[in-house]
Amino acid sequence: MMDVLLDKLKFDANGLVPVIVQDVESGQVLVMAFTNREALEKTIATGKVHTYSRSRGRVALKGESSGHFQHVKEVRTDCDLDAVLIKVVQVGGACHEGYRSCFFRRYEAGGGDWKVVEQPVFDPKAVYKK
Amino acid sequence: MMDVLLDKLKFDANGLVPVIVQDVESGQVLVMAFTNREALEKTIATGKVHTYSRSRGRVALKGESSGHFQHVKEVRTDCDLDAVLIKVVQVGGACHEGYRSCFFRRYEAGGGDWKVVEQPVFDPKAVYKK
Repeated sequence: MMDVLLDKLKFDANGLVPVIVQDVESGQVLVMAFTNREALEKTIATGKVHTYSRSRGRVALKGESSGHFQHVKEVRTDCDLDAVLIKVVQVGGACHEGYRSCFFRRYEAGGGDWKVVEQPVFDPKAVYKK
Repeated sequence: MMDVLLDKLKFDANGLVPVIVQDVESGQVLVMAFTNREALEKTIATGKVHTYSRSRGRVALKGESSGHFQHVKEVRTDCDLDAVLIKVVQVGGACHEGYRSCFFRRYEAGGGDWKVVEQPVFDPKAVYKK
């Protein structure tokens, strides 16, 4: 795909930039991931967020297993052109652990662990069953 | 500093994790940066966001030149413990180009460049003059 805007992004040595996905309605930050040129092209072409999964070594459609797609409303970049922010309408939950947002744990000084401060919105065992 | 919560974070090979800074009031994503153990300790100890500047090769207090500090209200991590979200009260603007948020440019299909869709909130020439 020819796209001069994507050409302007400063991908790192691995061809990646960090991407933040945000709920366009609530402003909640849903997930932080990495994307590359191909994933961005597919995101724009389909209107559904695709990211580059470093663990799987490939571009992945967010929600491909769960059906919890992220419908793109806006794509932004930052002053340095090395990070992307995508505002979306989130179906279900963004987190594979069943939460709306992956950022469901909070720092509390003196605690023994990061404290879970959100409620799950789906049951991962039911959604990811094969 | 002994802090078992910070020990649980999965810093990369360079000792870094991505950090998203978000306006606690409006939900606006202000900046995406990198942080390390030392920057997080200083962030928590002082209540002001510190990040690790890869270009300067050191921990930096956000706002040290401009006075545009980010006062920490909440620190979160994600399901994989490899990203951090900090909710803040932002003084002035987070972006060195004079904008409230670094994400002031939007993708518009067919455009020749990313479109500036925000208004500056301060004059960088005045704020960063030395």
